Amino acid sequence: MNNSRSLLDTKLLAQRFEAGNDASVQLEACQHIAQTYATIENGIAVLSDFNTRQSYLYPGGVAQQLGLDENNTTMRSIWEDELFNRIHPEDLQRKYRLEFQFFQLMKSIDVAQRFDYEAVSKLRIKNKEGNYVFVRHRILYLKGPEDDAIRFALCLYNVLYTHPEFDIPQGVIVNTKTAEVIDYDKQQFDNKLSSREKEILGLIQYGRRSKEIASQLAVSINTVHRHRQNILQKLKVSSAIEACRVAQNMGLL
Amino acid sequence: MNNSRSLLDTKLLAQRFEAGNDASVQLEACQHIAQTYATIENGIAVLSDFNTRQSYLYPGGVAQQLGLDENNTTMRSIWEDELFNRIHPEDLQRKYRLEFQFFQLMKSIDVAQRFDYEAVSKLRIKNKEGNYVFVRHRILYLKGPEDDAIRFALCLYNVLYTHPEFDIPQGVIVNTKTAEVIDYDKQQFDNKLSSREKEILGLIQYGRRSKEIASQLAVSINTVHRHRQNILQKLKVSSAIEACRVAQNMGLL
Repeated sequence: MNNSRSLLDTKLLAQRFEAGNDASVQLEACQHIAQTYATIENGIAVLSDFNTRQSYLYPGGVAQQLGLDENNTTMRSIWEDELFNRIHPEDLQRKYRLEFQFFQLMKSIDVAQRFDYEAVSKLRIKNKEGNYVFVRHRILYLKGPEDDAIRFALCLYNVLYTHPEFDIPQGVIVNTKTAEVIDYDKQQFDNKLSSREKEILGLIQYGRRSKEIASQLAVSINTVHRHRQNILQKLKVSSAIEACRVAQNMGLL
Repeated sequence: MNNSRSLLDTKLLAQRFEAGNDASVQLEACQHIAQTYATIENGIAVLSDFNTRQSYLYPGGVAQQLGLDENNTTMRSIWEDELFNRIHPEDLQRKYRLEFQFFQLMKSIDVAQRFDYEAVSKLRIKNKEGNYVFVRHRILYLKGPEDDAIRFALCLYNVLYTHPEFDIPQGVIVNTKTAEVIDYDKQQFDNKLSSREKEILGLIQYGRRSKEIASQLAVSINTVHRHRQNILQKLKVSSAIEACRVAQNMGLL
């Protein structure tokens, strides 16, 4: 069940962070942003610092409604597990997967555009009576002291109002500037790899070597190598093992 | 067309503001909040100060997409007319009406709870190509130096993404803490006044005096006076003329 989470863990924490001089100033600025959201919108704001591997939880008025412990506000983890334990397991899996896709996309675009995106998901979360209510979850990255690595993530949880016209998709990535919607579940990743590439990646996953793959598909070993290279490039990974994990996580295999 | 706006104008600006010592500190804090929203979400944030009758516009990335003049950021008015001129006239009228209802409600509840509410509306707004796109508009009040008067309003405009599952109602007031939805258009004001009270208010509007009303309805003048008092109390107004304007604006007459 925690396959997506551990993959995301690896990806987020394996980044190379350079300690900028203004790191603590940036942390304070990010904390202030999280605090503002919690106060103004009564939502729960969680700021995660991937470098120090700590999270800071700001409980707006909704935390009280949900029966969340409002004192446990600094966590020695990038994950806010007290909250996650209340999320419906299916939704939590979907959330991890979307966050992974979000991270991959953010790493692949120009740093200056990274802050124009956010991932939005609809989650069922248990309130203090033990009943599931819908919340809107948003994740976005905040500017850190070194912009190539993604250091600060802001997660915002707000209640979704019970009204027939209030609705959000289960999980999409949006551009807040251009209004573009990237619906990963439905379209984006379907055409990421060609069917030949998927076939080859499937064989790699089953432990076949390039030579065996070439023979099985009746193509030259150079062709197999070329496909391997394309797969690594398309998935933005550096090894075949990583490619398998990523493809599985994206639902490509 | 500007009936709702002028009524709102009167109500907002007629409040009694006491100059607190920390007024400028509070203004700066509110400006910082508006700035944060514009930066983080690429939306347009407008902070209005009903005391000094000025507004401060913070153009996030969306302003550019809409073709809005990004330099005109301090306005000697509580209304952001450059933006309003781009809103579909029907939606603008609905927005004024909702804001009026929001103000009335916020004045009638405990000050401590006032900051748990926001009014949300869906507006059509012209982009730089002259085509209408949907935006989500939210209005909420921020803490000012004197809490009885409502001094600072924050208006947030964000694009509504073109995706079948992203939707919001045309205009509702929500409690961000309890998730309660107050759907003014559909229910709230329908039962505000009894049919007898509506009848009497209608007669007042046509210029009838209490004595004439009593005679026409075959009731005592004391009964008419009692109804008048109830109407003023229910609509939170101090004169019959004001009652007529308010009731009309709420769609009660």
